[in-house]
Amino acid sequence: ADVNGSSSAGDATTTGAEGQGSQDTTQFESLKITKEAGVCEIRFNRPAKKNAITFQMYLDIEQALNDAAQDDSISVAVLTGEGDFYSSGNDLSNFSNIPEGGVEELANKAGDVLKQFVEAFVDFPKVLVAAVNGPAVGIPVTTLPLCDVVYASDKATFHTPFSALGQSPEACSSYTFPRIMGRTRANEVLLFGRKLNADEATEYGLVSQVFSHDSFSSEVDKRVKDAAALPPQALRLSKQLIRKVERDTLLKVNAEEIDLIKTRWTSDECMNAIMKFMSKGK
Amino acid sequence: ADVNGSSSAGDATTTGAEGQGSQDTTQFESLKITKEAGVCEIRFNRPAKKNAITFQMYLDIEQALNDAAQDDSISVAVLTGEGDFYSSGNDLSNFSNIPEGGVEELANKAGDVLKQFVEAFVDFPKVLVAAVNGPAVGIPVTTLPLCDVVYASDKATFHTPFSALGQSPEACSSYTFPRIMGRTRANEVLLFGRKLNADEATEYGLVSQVFSHDSFSSEVDKRVKDAAALPPQALRLSKQLIRKVERDTLLKVNAEEIDLIKTRWTSDECMNAIMKFMSKGK
Amino acid sequence: ADVNGSSSAGDATTTGAEGQGSQDTTQFESLKITKEAGVCEIRFNRPAKKNAITFQMYLDIEQALNDAAQDDSISVAVLTGEGDFYSSGNDLSNFSNIPEGGVEELANKAGDVLKQFVEAFVDFPKVLVAAVNGPAVGIPVTTLPLCDVVYASDKATFHTPFSALGQSPEACSSYTFPRIMGRTRANEVLLFGRKLNADEATEYGLVSQVFSHDSFSSEVDKRVKDAAALPPQALRLSKQLIRKVERDTLLKVNAEEIDLIKTRWTSDECMNAIMKFMSKGK
Repeated sequence: ADVNGSSSAGDATTTGAEGQGSQDTTQFESLKITKEAGVCEIRFNRPAKKNAITFQMYLDIEQALNDAAQDDSISVAVLTGEGDFYSSGNDLSNFSNIPEGGVEELANKAGDVLKQFVEAFVDFPKVLVAAVNGPAVGIPVTTLPLCDVVYASDKATFHTPFSALGQSPEACSSYTFPRIMGRTRANEVLLFGRKLNADEATEYGLVSQVFSHDSFSSEVDKRVKDAAALPPQALRLSKQLIRKVERDTLLKVNAEEIDLIKTRWTSDECMNAIMKFMSKGK
Repeated sequence: ADVNGSSSAGDATTTGAEGQGSQDTTQFESLKITKEAGVCEIRFNRPAKKNAITFQMYLDIEQALNDAAQDDSISVAVLTGEGDFYSSGNDLSNFSNIPEGGVEELANKAGDVLKQFVEAFVDFPKVLVAAVNGPAVGIPVTTLPLCDVVYASDKATFHTPFSALGQSPEACSSYTFPRIMGRTRANEVLLFGRKLNADEATEYGLVSQVFSHDSFSSEVDKRVKDAAALPPQALRLSKQLIRKVERDTLLKVNAEEIDLIKTRWTSDECMNAIMKFMSKGK
Repeated sequence: ADVNGSSSAGDATTTGAEGQGSQDTTQFESLKITKEAGVCEIRFNRPAKKNAITFQMYLDIEQALNDAAQDDSISVAVLTGEGDFYSSGNDLSNFSNIPEGGVEELANKAGDVLKQFVEAFVDFPKVLVAAVNGPAVGIPVTTLPLCDVVYASDKATFHTPFSALGQSPEACSSYTFPRIMGRTRANEVLLFGRKLNADEATEYGLVSQVFSHDSFSSEVDKRVKDAAALPPQALRLSKQLIRKVERDTLLKVNAEEIDLIKTRWTSDECMNAIMKFMSKGK
């Protein structure tokens, strides 16, 4: 994937949408945005690449969240994936073009992008629903606890192979996973890279409810529509109340995770692990 | 219900009870207090109104807790409901008599009553057991995590329809629910108003154990009696140790929740939602 | 058991072991230490006494953890028990020899030993796995959340009868148990002494996974070997990242628990409860 210049706010086209509360929406190359009846759906739209996240996509998702936050017609935002995958995570091609400043410059850039991306989740002021339609790997998994409600298809899986890639937990997962699952379960997932299926993720509290893949869309739609019909101020203020208790901790943990992962990305251990992984894939 | 003057400490009659550790107990119009063998049972006793909580009942429950705290013969307190309901929550008639000072004065008064009520749970120094004999709605649900142990009949349900009523979480539930259930489950309950049955509430950790309705009383009695037979100082000091870790956070969260809910109660959104709800009920 | 002088670092013999990463290891009377392929197994080895923990064993386990921490060839440490029990907990004979300074001196000594023992768990810098091969009582249960991953045989049970013995929670369990299980489940375990079987402990999140007793060793070995094959720096740094978020809280809670338990050990209530228990056992 050509990371630079392929899509940006500058390229944005707008499209008129129907229905109450709908309006012109910014278009992104790898995201499909739909607004209808108080709901903004942000759909990862790079199915041929399993919705892997390029640098540009990080920025675009962040902007899409900011747009939804500022749009008074929107009460609930939904993240989901086009095709079989929710998202296979960080596109490792992000690491393949080493800039002039070397690996360290690349790690700093990637760390800054990631930090800001996670902050957009922490500070999203409205209800954020993740509709996990299929396998999720890495950052699409670790950001789930920063969403408010998580629905999963029974075809979804949840995998965070940080250790095998010589990396370390991000998106506040070093804090959120132990609090949600209990320490000992969380460590199997975060440290050992244990992959969870949808039932396990639900039992562990990472997922609110799991639905059969066949009825997944309709089950989610129903709940999201009901949510968007609730008094919007009550919904927004209650969400912010719940987030407020731990916002400072989340931002602090995010910063510490980024500090660590930057040093990881420049380590021989990590580079060897990624090269080993990429050569396997070929 | 006539909120003012119907029952108060001033009206209190006393009744002699038998058995070790028993003593004269203050009587309340809508609470039935029983003390026996180290156990003080506080029973919501307004079954014709589904044990809905009037302003006076908030004060009476608070006083009953304080009495049990100060009674050296008591080691364990139990909250339960008379009839089919545990409690249907805040009596909406609390909001029907607007005082001279208007809605704002009413909201301030109700907020102050609620704040002190929640503090009585946070600071109750002995073991507090909730025996949820039937449906619970609103504050009787959100106070459960402030109790130490929660037993439920399989006829119990747990419902917190804050958003639909234009309101926001209270009794520290914005803090306790995510910590108990995990964020994504908690938000479905707190934000979307998802009602849980007894099995779900147990799976989510809101309830310690669920028992068949037929044997509910005897199962609870057995456990409460066993608890009251334990060395009382060990029990009391261990409970306080466990509470101490988060007492400051609970009090801070309570204050912030009250600040929000006061503004909610004076909002058009909330008043419209309550009027819509009450007109449905008629 | 003769607590003093039976085994110590001064008595230590060393044994050569084979395999990569193996090296001479300190020997302890009641611990069996094995190092192989990046894994250090610390095995409680007092099966005739159900692996009850004497004063010397507290010190030895602490030293074994410190050795494993400092051994560059070791990536993962495993705690397990020889024979049928994981460990029956604090050897009550620790309390049977009252020194000249009386009960208070004994309580102070025991509290200091316990405090340092718990700190060794909190600050263990590598991955620590507990392989709970059978029943666990008291401190072997409360230290489980300070381990990173916990596997249990289906013959394991988990019992913390603090209240019945006039004592109070230790090893940070007053903080960790409510966070892992939810408050109401944790209090049944910590306050009421409810014993959990392996399935319940897994459902409550105290245990990562439970395996049939017949295949327990092989299931654990497989996972531990896989873990030890992961990039060691990534594993170590990720573990420390996860621990860092709550290290200060854990150390503070430990100190407060020790303060309380020291006063408990000198109380009549506790001494009577222990004497009652020991006379039952004879």
